[in-house]
Amino acid sequence: MIYLDNSATTKPSISAINKASIFNTKHYFNPSTLYHEGLNCAKEIKNAKEAILNSLKTTSHEVIFTSSGTESDNMAVFCAVKRGVFVTSLGEHSAIYKSFLELKNRKLEVYFIDLEKDGSVNTDKLYELALNTKIDFLSLVHVNNETGAKNDVTKIAKRIKSINPSTIIHCDGVQAYGKIPFRLPQEIDLYSISAHKINGLKGTGALIKRKGLNISPLIFGGGQENGLRSGTENLFGIKVFEYALNEKFNNIENTYTLVKDTKEYFINNLDKSIFTIISGENSSPYILSVSAKGIRGEVLMHAIEKEGVIVGNGSACSSKNRYSRVIQACGYDNDVLDGVIRISFCTPLTNEEREKAVNVINEQANNLKGIML
Amino acid sequence: MIYLDNSATTKPSISAINKASIFNTKHYFNPSTLYHEGLNCAKEIKNAKEAILNSLKTTSHEVIFTSSGTESDNMAVFCAVKRGVFVTSLGEHSAIYKSFLELKNRKLEVYFIDLEKDGSVNTDKLYELALNTKIDFLSLVHVNNETGAKNDVTKIAKRIKSINPSTIIHCDGVQAYGKIPFRLPQEIDLYSISAHKINGLKGTGALIKRKGLNISPLIFGGGQENGLRSGTENLFGIKVFEYALNEKFNNIENTYTLVKDTKEYFINNLDKSIFTIISGENSSPYILSVSAKGIRGEVLMHAIEKEGVIVGNGSACSSKNRYSRVIQACGYDNDVLDGVIRISFCTPLTNEEREKAVNVINEQANNLKGIML
Repeated sequence: MIYLDNSATTKPSISAINKASIFNTKHYFNPSTLYHEGLNCAKEIKNAKEAILNSLKTTSHEVIFTSSGTESDNMAVFCAVKRGVFVTSLGEHSAIYKSFLELKNRKLEVYFIDLEKDGSVNTDKLYELALNTKIDFLSLVHVNNETGAKNDVTKIAKRIKSINPSTIIHCDGVQAYGKIPFRLPQEIDLYSISAHKINGLKGTGALIKRKGLNISPLIFGGGQENGLRSGTENLFGIKVFEYALNEKFNNIENTYTLVKDTKEYFINNLDKSIFTIISGENSSPYILSVSAKGIRGEVLMHAIEKEGVIVGNGSACSSKNRYSRVIQACGYDNDVLDGVIRISFCTPLTNEEREKAVNVINEQANNLKGIML
Repeated sequence: MIYLDNSATTKPSISAINKASIFNTKHYFNPSTLYHEGLNCAKEIKNAKEAILNSLKTTSHEVIFTSSGTESDNMAVFCAVKRGVFVTSLGEHSAIYKSFLELKNRKLEVYFIDLEKDGSVNTDKLYELALNTKIDFLSLVHVNNETGAKNDVTKIAKRIKSINPSTIIHCDGVQAYGKIPFRLPQEIDLYSISAHKINGLKGTGALIKRKGLNISPLIFGGGQENGLRSGTENLFGIKVFEYALNEKFNNIENTYTLVKDTKEYFINNLDKSIFTIISGENSSPYILSVSAKGIRGEVLMHAIEKEGVIVGNGSACSSKNRYSRVIQACGYDNDVLDGVIRISFCTPLTNEEREKAVNVINEQANNLKGIML
């Protein structure tokens, strides 16, 4: 099987799991306890936080462990700013989009900025709003999880802060972290990451917070994570995250280049008479969104799976809707929207793998096209 | 090492982990995806929910997976009732207690009912309040995590519903689940459980919800768990939970009896000239709270650890405060409060283990007593 839905989730790193398994077999203590064995567990969490901060090349931030990128996004939206003007884009993951709808429900002032054709935010419109309105909270995805479009979040954050230094800026870094080489600037107050998108385990995420920024908890209780996120710390998940990110960051530049090459192979070899490339030229190498016009993406996805290749149909998290809200916001018609599949990578494919995958995708699309004509 | 802080966390079941490891190595797909492999993962979650409902002998409820008992408690407090009168006891875990303080912060009407000496809720005072005030939301712990006191939550829930059928009743079942044989009655609308207290992994919990009860999400996003709890499902953690609970429930009655015997051995053999027994006669066999009057519990805990026995000092989750808020609410003086340690079991101890543990605790308490005199 060739697995090409790595933006939905990645295969956990067995070496990271094996290395962390001692936290289930031997050091399984509650990290909030005060005896020696418990304190050692707490120290292990601290080390994992250091690893994350190092990977983002920042000394201005601190780490709050959560259960997922989604929880991190929710904390950012609901816990940093309590009133005022909330701004995001139409290209956000549901964790942000639905949280913003909830803000709207609660009668807060909410703006959704339009997208460019590639799925990145329309910065002209964003800056125009910022110049005319005092923005209290801005959330922008770093890498769009459907099209792979990169927002230049450092540049945008600096510009927004120069307009209004008190705007709190959050970025959802779930699809960027461990993939796109990046230094987290202090202008970004909050940054969400997730373990299972970089070969860690589901159930572990983190919200990176600028030191000195006060936020309230989303989950109250025993006071773990400096009182900001209660619940017994998931030490095993946290250590798998640490070991997986170390593996990832050891090779991040090289993998980036090789995955870029893999993606280009797909772009060059997918049947141009069928496929429209949605991902822009400057998009993340890890995500390739294409549409087989006239074919339903879901049907194509199933046909491809039967031949041993797994791709996604848009965002897994919103797979219950026929059309992708995000691709729709890029400005495509329904016949393009209908045919979207997302091919997403974790590591470069071998020549045999990429040839097989492209052949299967082309063949199955041609078969379905034949049936439909 | 003899580990006697099982109310803080338990050692994960290696057999459950091994059995579930296939969900990291092979079936690691995102359960929200629509391809065959993803749908199979979704089916596995459904099976785990069935196992939980069977273990609680209920067909009136459904399961929402969360990241912890704490998150489940927060969902119950914040997402079931939006306004009105909120009632709990002074004997709750911090996940409830701190959430209620937050309700108070938000200017909602909140009552904390007094405790009996053993840590159970004073039901006279509760019923008196219920008869005089329309209670909208009631949260009561099933087994007190510090003293082990059992609240007869079935009886209380039936009585409260007979006074006001529209009161929403939540019970924190974290220290009861898998330990105290129990059938979840339909009068209990919401019930929190946690995997890592019964040899599952940290990072997995569940909120059991009566079918037909409408609650809102605490975490918004991709719409997992019927839209009630977004974030990629932690399938591995969920399956470890399922396998661990099956192991636990296969033997629940027998283990209950044997652990009761272990606890009685401790009560009978701890040095009566030093130790006051705080746990009541009717308390959970799994928790024994005692106080070494005149000795600091934390100091005693460290001394005991050096001899290879690990006990807790009150609730791990509130270990940052000198006195336990809950034991204080039971009506004890500061010199008793100072000396509290919590001895908590998971499985019965062997004769050698229990003898060693009791000897170590008695010896170290006597040593410290000698130093202090």
